Parts: sequence; structure tokens; C-alpha cells
Amino acid sequence: MSTSDIRPGETAITLPDTFDAGVYFIGRIHTPWKMRSECPKNARGSDAECTIEVDPRYAAGLEGVAGCSHVVVLYFMHEARRDLMVQAPRHHPVPRGTFSVRSPVRPNPIAMSVARLVRVEGARLTVVGLDCLDGTPLIDIKPYFASVDSVPDATITRAE
Amino acid sequence: MSTSDIRPGETAITLPDTFDAGVYFIGRIHTPWKMRSECPKNARGSDAECTIEVDPRYAAGLEGVAGCSHVVVLYFMHEARRDLMVQAPRHHPVPRGTFSVRSPVRPNPIAMSVARLVRVEGARLTVVGLDCLDGTPLIDIKPYFASVDSVPDATITRAE
Repeated sequence: MSTSDIRPGETAITLPDTFDAGVYFIGRIHTPWKMRSECPKNARGSDAECTIEVDPRYAAGLEGVAGCSHVVVLYFMHEARRDLMVQAPRHHPVPRGTFSVRSPVRPNPIAMSVARLVRVEGARLTVVGLDCLDGTPLIDIKPYFASVDSVPDATITRAE
Repeated sequence: MSTSDIRPGETAITLPDTFDAGVYFIGRIHTPWKMRSECPKNARGSDAECTIEVDPRYAAGLEGVAGCSHVVVLYFMHEARRDLMVQAPRHHPVPRGTFSVRSPVRPNPIAMSVARLVRVEGARLTVVGLDCLDGTPLIDIKPYFASVDSVPDATITRAE
């Protein structure tokens, strides 16, 4: 994508010529949403059940996951551009730093969502709480620990 | 690392020949811990201040981050092996599926920590709540939203 394809107030950078490390897509996420415009605005925006299909190669790693009420899901937003450091989403007039928003547009387009685990059947997890496109590549699943991951009184103050 | 270097109960797989996507190291995390044995056992195990140095190339993306009381930090545990699907940590006798633990050993060794933001000075963030080695490569910083990221009553049930 050309750096000329930016909105007023946005800032694009030149990315490095090479990557520093590689990731494997270890499965796929299936959701009801086939287009960006259909996705819920955030992960609590829908009660839809989504499924995470882990590739057979990695299925043995799921031992014990069924005991988690919630999981951290990392996934790769492979359709997002990676070069915007200040971005102005269509629905918001004030440009914002990439690291202050959860937009898919970032140098490493890896999303983190906390999902409620409904059930595990073989290498398929049914969850509630994802907001990504159908077919999104899976990067990781982790147990959610309330003791370290939950900060109910966290706040964000910013210009609107 | 050879697949023969595993403990009883562990399961190693053959990883794919190629990666599916690449990541950029966008900065470095500085902590008091120079060796794995010194790191706190989890992210709430220390009140030590750590610093996140974002590379100048990406610094414009920090606009607005100072308004966050907490941030989600993704980082790359570049010293970890990636092929164990069932692992038996030294301190724990029962082998566990990789996706049911927060060990650095996983197909994509990307850690997620929730850190309290103490201050932002230019491209340097001071935070509390990281448990990684000094020099760990940074992958991403995101705002922590209590509304979607905090689940105080999440539980984990498993064999001990």
C-alpha cells in the first residue's frame, strides 16, 4: 500500500527491509463475520460463538486448556497495513498514536483478545468474545490468569 | 535444539519448514534480570520498575499512551525453544499442554503481560509488572481496556 493512501493527520513510516523473527500460523479462527464492516466494534460487542481450529500438528498442546474459564488468544491480522504510526480511524476525528489504540493497523498486527471458553472438542475450541474476520490466522492460546491479567480499575484518559 | 533434549512426559513436534509471517522487533525491554533463574515467577512477583525503549522509527506511535494507567505488552522470548507441545517445567512434576501454561516455550514465543504504566519520557516507558530477561525484544504495546480485558472471576481448574 502506498504511503499516499493516508487520511489527514496520519503518519506513515518506512518499515525495515527485513523481519527480525518469524511466526507460524497454528490454526484458524472461524467467526460469523466475512467483512471488516460486519465485525463487532470490540470483543464484548457480540455474544456469538466463534470456533478456533488448531492444526493437528499442534493439537497435543491443548491438554489441560479445557480447565480454563477464559483464554488469551493471539491472532494475526494479516490484511492490515503495518506502516501507520498515527492513525485516524474513519469513525473518529482525532488522530491517535498506534500504540494507544487497538486497531489492527500496527507494525506487528498481532491482536490480543480475552475469550470465554465454552467447550473443547478435540482440536476445536468454542469461545465467546472474539471480534475478528472469519479465517483469521491463530498465533497462540494462553490460559488467562485473573491474578496477573485482570485489572478492573485500569483507566484511560485521553482527548476525544 | 535436538528433540532428544526433553524431560520425561514431554512431547516435541517437527515444526514447519517455513514461517507464515514476520515480525519486527520495535524496541527493547530493560529489566533487572540477566538470567532466567533471576526472573520473578510471574508478572506480579516483583515491584521492580522496568523500562521499555521504543526504537525512534516507531516513537510517533506513542502519542496518547501516557493516558493509559495500564498497557498490554507483547514481547518475543527469543531464547525459547518452539517445538514442545507437552512440557514438564523443572519446578512442576505434571506434564502440561503448552497452551495451558504461560511458559516461554511455545510455537510462537510471544509473551503477553499487563503492566502498570508509571511514566512516559520520549520513547521510553517506565512500567511495573514485567518478568522477562533484560534485553527482550518488544513486539507491541496496546492500551489495556478494563471493559474487555479484565475478567476478575476467571478460573483455572486442573490436575496438580
